[in-house]
Amino acid sequence: MPKEVTYTLHVEFGDCDPARIVWFPNFFRWIDAASRHFFIACGVPPWHELEKSHGIIGTPLVDTHAKFQKTASYGDTLQIHASITEWRGKSFVQHYRVTRGDDAIMECDEVRIFAARREGDATGIRAVVAPDEIRRLCE
Amino acid sequence: MPKEVTYTLHVEFGDCDPARIVWFPNFFRWIDAASRHFFIACGVPPWHELEKSHGIIGTPLVDTHAKFQKTASYGDTLQIHASITEWRGKSFVQHYRVTRGDDAIMECDEVRIFAARREGDATGIRAVVAPDEIRRLCE
Amino acid sequence: MPKEVTYTLHVEFGDCDPARIVWFPNFFRWIDAASRHFFIACGVPPWHELEKSHGIIGTPLVDTHAKFQKTASYGDTLQIHASITEWRGKSFVQHYRVTRGDDAIMECDEVRIFAARREGDATGIRAVVAPDEIRRLCE
Amino acid sequence: MPKEVTYTLHVEFGDCDPARIVWFPNFFRWIDAASRHFFIACGVPPWHELEKSHGIIGTPLVDTHAKFQKTASYGDTLQIHASITEWRGKSFVQHYRVTRGDDAIMECDEVRIFAARREGDATGIRAVVAPDEIRRLCE
Repeated sequence: MPKEVTYTLHVEFGDCDPARIVWFPNFFRWIDAASRHFFIACGVPPWHELEKSHGIIGTPLVDTHAKFQKTASYGDTLQIHASITEWRGKSFVQHYRVTRGDDAIMECDEVRIFAARREGDATGIRAVVAPDEIRRLCE
Repeated sequence: MPKEVTYTLHVEFGDCDPARIVWFPNFFRWIDAASRHFFIACGVPPWHELEKSHGIIGTPLVDTHAKFQKTASYGDTLQIHASITEWRGKSFVQHYRVTRGDDAIMECDEVRIFAARREGDATGIRAVVAPDEIRRLCE
Repeated sequence: MPKEVTYTLHVEFGDCDPARIVWFPNFFRWIDAASRHFFIACGVPPWHELEKSHGIIGTPLVDTHAKFQKTASYGDTLQIHASITEWRGKSFVQHYRVTRGDDAIMECDEVRIFAARREGDATGIRAVVAPDEIRRLCE
Repeated sequence: MPKEVTYTLHVEFGDCDPARIVWFPNFFRWIDAASRHFFIACGVPPWHELEKSHGIIGTPLVDTHAKFQKTASYGDTLQIHASITEWRGKSFVQHYRVTRGDDAIMECDEVRIFAARREGDATGIRAVVAPDEIRRLCE
């Protein structure tokens, strides 16, 4: 079983739209936080330190697939259970289950890469192989 | 060929993260706007009018699958080309291509439903069959 | 001394801009959450219940004045100390101090109203006098 | 009369909250875009170029004061009229009027600084005097 890390959040009034339910881009905001929180909880240093030591500036998304199962609204407390379910050389699959108590709210599978800057290109990035010591921390 | 509607947006400084590229949840913010813009451009009334006439409060997401192809940053002008590529009774597939000139930036397929409120439940929603007159406007 | 309620938050990567500091509109996002959290912590029911009992749909802003004292970045834990420092009939002043440990990060004074819908107008609102029982809970 | 630059935006569904009006932090998102748009329209290079030539990484806020006059909702087209109304050595006052046709929606006065990085401090910033050539472009 891969390591699972849980991130807890409270849905706020401003996270909801005129239909009074969470406006869905906010789920991706929280999932991105849960992704970074996963690495921190596993003992991986923050990106600005990894940039100095490994040239890694973050783990940008390549592909994401989400299923929305139940709606959520303000006042709800949600939990995001994150794990890395597959390592693929220069990319990896990060899996998330969003729950409210026993309710399944959303499920998401992301393909992310470890990214370094491309030489002489302010915003260009390139994928690098996940360093072994980072991978070991996350398994 | 299904009807295609283009939504144009300008990437702002605050849409970008410390890696100086668009923070990905913002793509979903724009895609949601492009989705609604598609219906408006096709002649479908805004949701608060449809709620009165058809009980429809919006088109919440059931499933979304996105591929990120190239990064974007502030100063970029992006175009989102939206179409409905499949009708499935109570749901439909909405397709988006995000481009910057000739560059493909992102692609996304969503399954959305036409949603009505569930009786006696403030935030519960249920799927309804797409009304024929709405479907005809979007094809 | 007015009642003070503290709201704690963690600054995320996506809350920061290319200058690697919190993008300021996010402070207002958190302050709005701290405002609502203040009322909940004081025992005031959520807005959708107050709409049924008192016709009150929320406490929209009329005026806000913020001073930014120190920058914050991702990884920081911030606390927002909220209180109501003045009652003015149909409006009130809500005061916030945002701190990171001993550092003062931001200070903000808002004028808000208790709002009810205007008859026959989907988005129009009007100010109502703060109900006594709500005011007592917050002092 | 100071130079005035107008920024146009369309309010989207997701910009609105359960009260069906613009959630106020979004006004600050747009005002920040209007601020940067003002400098670009005046001919000032983007921040990442100014960082190389002048060490300037942006114009962070020191103080903001906003008055909300009328609500706005999705479907509205808003205009933000921006100008610099005062130069104060290391800071300046940027003024905004947000309108919907003839309706005044919001007014805002900001104190901003031209910021450079503090030596040996990843997120620390310091104010620098506005370069003369930038100031001339904006008057």
